[in-house]
Amino acid sequence: MSEAGTRQRALGTLGRVLIGRPLRTSEVEAEEITPVEGLSALSLDALTSVAYGPEAILVVLAGAGAGALHLVFPVTVAIVVLLAILVLSYRQVIDAYPSGGGAYAVARANLGTGVSLLAAAALIVDYTLTAAVSIAAGVGQVTSAFPALSSDALWLCLAMLALITLVNLRGLGDAARAFLLPTAIFIVGVLAVIVVGLIHPLARQVPQPGRVLLPTGTLEAVGVLLVLKAFAAGCSALTGVEAVANGVPLFREPRQRRAKRTETLLGVILGVMLLGLGVLTVRFHIQPRSGQTALSQIMGESVGRHWAFYVVSLATTAALALAANTSFGGLPVLASLLSRDHYLPHLFRLRGDRQTFSNGIVALAVFAAALLVAVDGDTQRLIPMFAIGVFTGFTVAQSGLVVHWWHERPAGWRRRAGINGLGAVVTAVSTVIFLVTKFSSGGWVVVVAVTVFVVMFHRIRTYYEGVADLLAFDEIPPPPAGRRTMVVVPVTNVSLLTRQALGEALSLSDDVTAVTVALDDGDEARDVQARWAAWDPGVPLRVLSTEYASVVDPIVAFIDEERAAHDAQVVVLIPCVVPARLRHRLLHNQIDVVLSSALRHRTDVIVARVRIDVDVRQVTSDTGRADDGARRRIPQAAAAPPSASSSEPGPSE
Amino acid sequence: MSEAGTRQRALGTLGRVLIGRPLRTSEVEAEEITPVEGLSALSLDALTSVAYGPEAILVVLAGAGAGALHLVFPVTVAIVVLLAILVLSYRQVIDAYPSGGGAYAVARANLGTGVSLLAAAALIVDYTLTAAVSIAAGVGQVTSAFPALSSDALWLCLAMLALITLVNLRGLGDAARAFLLPTAIFIVGVLAVIVVGLIHPLARQVPQPGRVLLPTGTLEAVGVLLVLKAFAAGCSALTGVEAVANGVPLFREPRQRRAKRTETLLGVILGVMLLGLGVLTVRFHIQPRSGQTALSQIMGESVGRHWAFYVVSLATTAALALAANTSFGGLPVLASLLSRDHYLPHLFRLRGDRQTFSNGIVALAVFAAALLVAVDGDTQRLIPMFAIGVFTGFTVAQSGLVVHWWHERPAGWRRRAGINGLGAVVTAVSTVIFLVTKFSSGGWVVVVAVTVFVVMFHRIRTYYEGVADLLAFDEIPPPPAGRRTMVVVPVTNVSLLTRQALGEALSLSDDVTAVTVALDDGDEARDVQARWAAWDPGVPLRVLSTEYASVVDPIVAFIDEERAAHDAQVVVLIPCVVPARLRHRLLHNQIDVVLSSALRHRTDVIVARVRIDVDVRQVTSDTGRADDGARRRIPQAAAAPPSASSSEPGPSE
Repeated sequence: MSEAGTRQRALGTLGRVLIGRPLRTSEVEAEEITPVEGLSALSLDALTSVAYGPEAILVVLAGAGAGALHLVFPVTVAIVVLLAILVLSYRQVIDAYPSGGGAYAVARANLGTGVSLLAAAALIVDYTLTAAVSIAAGVGQVTSAFPALSSDALWLCLAMLALITLVNLRGLGDAARAFLLPTAIFIVGVLAVIVVGLIHPLARQVPQPGRVLLPTGTLEAVGVLLVLKAFAAGCSALTGVEAVANGVPLFREPRQRRAKRTETLLGVILGVMLLGLGVLTVRFHIQPRSGQTALSQIMGESVGRHWAFYVVSLATTAALALAANTSFGGLPVLASLLSRDHYLPHLFRLRGDRQTFSNGIVALAVFAAALLVAVDGDTQRLIPMFAIGVFTGFTVAQSGLVVHWWHERPAGWRRRAGINGLGAVVTAVSTVIFLVTKFSSGGWVVVVAVTVFVVMFHRIRTYYEGVADLLAFDEIPPPPAGRRTMVVVPVTNVSLLTRQALGEALSLSDDVTAVTVALDDGDEARDVQARWAAWDPGVPLRVLSTEYASVVDPIVAFIDEERAAHDAQVVVLIPCVVPARLRHRLLHNQIDVVLSSALRHRTDVIVARVRIDVDVRQVTSDTGRADDGARRRIPQAAAAPPSASSSEPGPSE
Repeated sequence: MSEAGTRQRALGTLGRVLIGRPLRTSEVEAEEITPVEGLSALSLDALTSVAYGPEAILVVLAGAGAGALHLVFPVTVAIVVLLAILVLSYRQVIDAYPSGGGAYAVARANLGTGVSLLAAAALIVDYTLTAAVSIAAGVGQVTSAFPALSSDALWLCLAMLALITLVNLRGLGDAARAFLLPTAIFIVGVLAVIVVGLIHPLARQVPQPGRVLLPTGTLEAVGVLLVLKAFAAGCSALTGVEAVANGVPLFREPRQRRAKRTETLLGVILGVMLLGLGVLTVRFHIQPRSGQTALSQIMGESVGRHWAFYVVSLATTAALALAANTSFGGLPVLASLLSRDHYLPHLFRLRGDRQTFSNGIVALAVFAAALLVAVDGDTQRLIPMFAIGVFTGFTVAQSGLVVHWWHERPAGWRRRAGINGLGAVVTAVSTVIFLVTKFSSGGWVVVVAVTVFVVMFHRIRTYYEGVADLLAFDEIPPPPAGRRTMVVVPVTNVSLLTRQALGEALSLSDDVTAVTVALDDGDEARDVQARWAAWDPGVPLRVLSTEYASVVDPIVAFIDEERAAHDAQVVVLIPCVVPARLRHRLLHNQIDVVLSSALRHRTDVIVARVRIDVDVRQVTSDTGRADDGARRRIPQAAAAPPSASSSEPGPSE
């Protein structure tokens, strides 16, 4: 034990350094998050959307010519109103469903299993997309600044993903604290830009790089459809609003109060940012430009293009990449809830040493990595799939709350139901607009993925129900009964390992048989037989011969014979060497590997291993050098004699 | 068993289709090869070298101007003489060392361990290079013909390698037969080209594509060094001559006679080809040209550039790629010999179901694939490393035979020793020339690799000797002694699986304890406890609580406590579900995975699994559809109740 223990500790060190030592329940509080930390851990997705939300509105409106740009502000106001509805709604979700899960939990309680699974699938798809999109967007900003890196974009994305995954495996508290500084700079920076822009007497009129992207042809009439499209496009700024409600269990106690405070903080900051940027867009006559985001133009107009501009740009870039963390906060909790309800494999319920749902974190990392590889780290190919899932979740959560109010009818339930009903209608309309406008350019992938997930959930649940039936989980089974046991020990020599294996076999049963397989010319088997007779351990040795090359087949055949002859439980006890060094593993236990694999699915045989520690450093110190003259001889029992011509390795009886 | 058996059979089908059913010893003859098959299985490497050997001579001589080209014929004659010496020598190797292994076996018997390991390492390195070079060369010819494929060269290489590996895993006989047709076309084609070229009154004087690669500046004096360099370069035509002697065990009985016949056949055909091509080179005034090999020019002059030209070119391409098979014939046998002598892991001695040394085949494939990936499928980066290893092997084998004759002194031993001595000197000189001229451009890689292999051989041997000492392989150990056994069964519920596990545990010992871990709020553990009390199986249940998140740590701590308290052998019996479908495995046995892994290196605990077959198809036929109303309930014992708000998944005591 000591030797293997030392090695295992050494092996574990890397994991410890990367992920940290295991945490006690009592220490978990340090990994649970406060409202401010909640902003960096769960809200970056929503907050950083100011980097692309206003832009999306501008681009749609610009399609109708410069005259339509004055609609930016009213559309922004409408979005902020929807934001307020969503924040109020999700604060109520936090109160009603404090286990997290957001839309899934709400729908499960109010709208039935089908809708809840639809919401869960939509959220899972969107979480994965969010992780991939934000990392790709963050890396995209870096490679725009340093074009030399652009050929390595995918590797940068995967490295970033690995970093975020590792930090999350350490615990969300660590992630939140690690991301606090860029989050703070980003929020303070953008707010400062807005304040400066508002109090400054006039725009700086700095020349903006890039060219204006306004159509030069005839202008469209500004219709209701255009405004709706602009509204739907701007709604991408709202993705991530649900993450706080989905991740309530991650907060420090009192959980609900802290989570609600985070939700409010998020709503206020995001609302102020959106409104402020909306006002400045109009004031500075911002127009879509090539290679320049609206945010970047506003920053340039308001503070000029010097160090402050670059610091905030950099913080925006970092915050964009770290927005992937929102997914790592939300998806593992959702997966654990689905797993608890038997819609996902139970392994998603297990917590890791750091009390995180490590399987969910790893699964998200794998999915996001696959997505990044599939699109080669290119954000543009992911954008059309984005937001459909989140808005499906919004719609489901709001509708669920309407039903909730209808059933509960607390004071003012009509007003609350009204707000949520309005929210449900608006988000439903947005979802439909997303689906219709984005379907052919990638939205169909989301539809397919959500369908696949929903079918999978149902199948997994049905399967678990079948297993519960088969194994009689809800009945009291008959009492267990012991049987006679016979132990089979495959041996290749007479040694201390063989002795230990026989000793342990004799501890389990009086009925022990050793078996050895005669291969090639059978010399080695004869040698084992002779030494066995000399030893006389009180256990019979059966020499098995075979027409096939495999060592395993004759042993399996012997076991089958014995099973047919006696009504006994068969235990196969395989002697194994545990070398002190990892690299020496390849040198041992080849029989164990093939025999265990052959018996892997046998339910009528118990396979067990007897292990012995071997540390050759105890007997030899010259492992590095060769010494032909005085080398120790490996005796016959171990293998064929080392003369080249005496034992020809051709097959024979 | 029946269910799992069915599935395992189904899983095995793919392997069977690709590799074939297991072979009995008595059927092995079909996989052993005849002399003609030996040509396609073991000699393609040597034979196809006519595609680059004469070329190499031309290129060196052309460095001294057109005047030096008349030396092509004498240099070719010298090479053919060396070929004759090598063939005679290796025929004698086959007689003296019929277990295969070639230079390794000869050196082991006559020159000591150190030299034999040097030869073995050199051969292993060169076999790997041969496999990679010939595949890359074959694919290179294809991509020259179809430039559109050139971006996929590496994938084509790996696909070709996979194909050759698969065919070899089926058995060398299958490989030999599969490759017989291209080999025959290649040999007959080249010989026909030579015959036509010789009897035809005059060269066809067809215009040759490409431009002449002769220096236009001042001409070098034709010195001894130049001739030596040309000779050494042409010697690349001799690589592969040793493969037959290394692979004697692969031949059908009478092995030695058949192998010697193959060696002679190879020598005669290769000699005739080299001489014939040498004569035609002079007759047609062949000069090095860009993008045209000498062989291709000779073919063009002799038969014209029509269908016959293209058929032989195609067969040459195929034969070049298949020459990799020489390595698959030689390396696994050599590895099995080294393994038998404890210089490589013992797993290389195991034969697969098809009686092939499958581990050696797979190892070669992995090494060759790594090499191909490292050089991105580009032959030119491998060529400088080529031939050094083989010529080291030649030198060692010839020197060893000189010592052999000196010891044995049969009739005419002076003449034989003289021939081998001459061969040893010539190949030694060639080896030195290779090393010096190629060292900086890649030869150093071979030197490093050979050194690493030799050091590794010594270390492995020393390690095995240490293990033999530690485990007392050459002593009679004390008799084995049984001890008291206690069985620990981790359970998560009361079910038929639990019953079976307890039954098997009671078969092993009277001292059985079931343990369950209280996680999260402990509700589930309390439920198991209540059902256990109702069941009363005669086995105590210990509920383990933990401050950590891990399920494993409390179980391991319990085992440690028990080990400290009693002098008993501890068996941990883990209940496992074997689902009927592979994809359902992810849904089960998460405790087994983490617990087995935690106990993997414990030598003081025997870990065993109790398996139960679960086939949900027996109870449910609607796995694909959802049915929310009338679904079966998964009872509490299996997991928490499916209500979203009742059990919050936060950690608690």
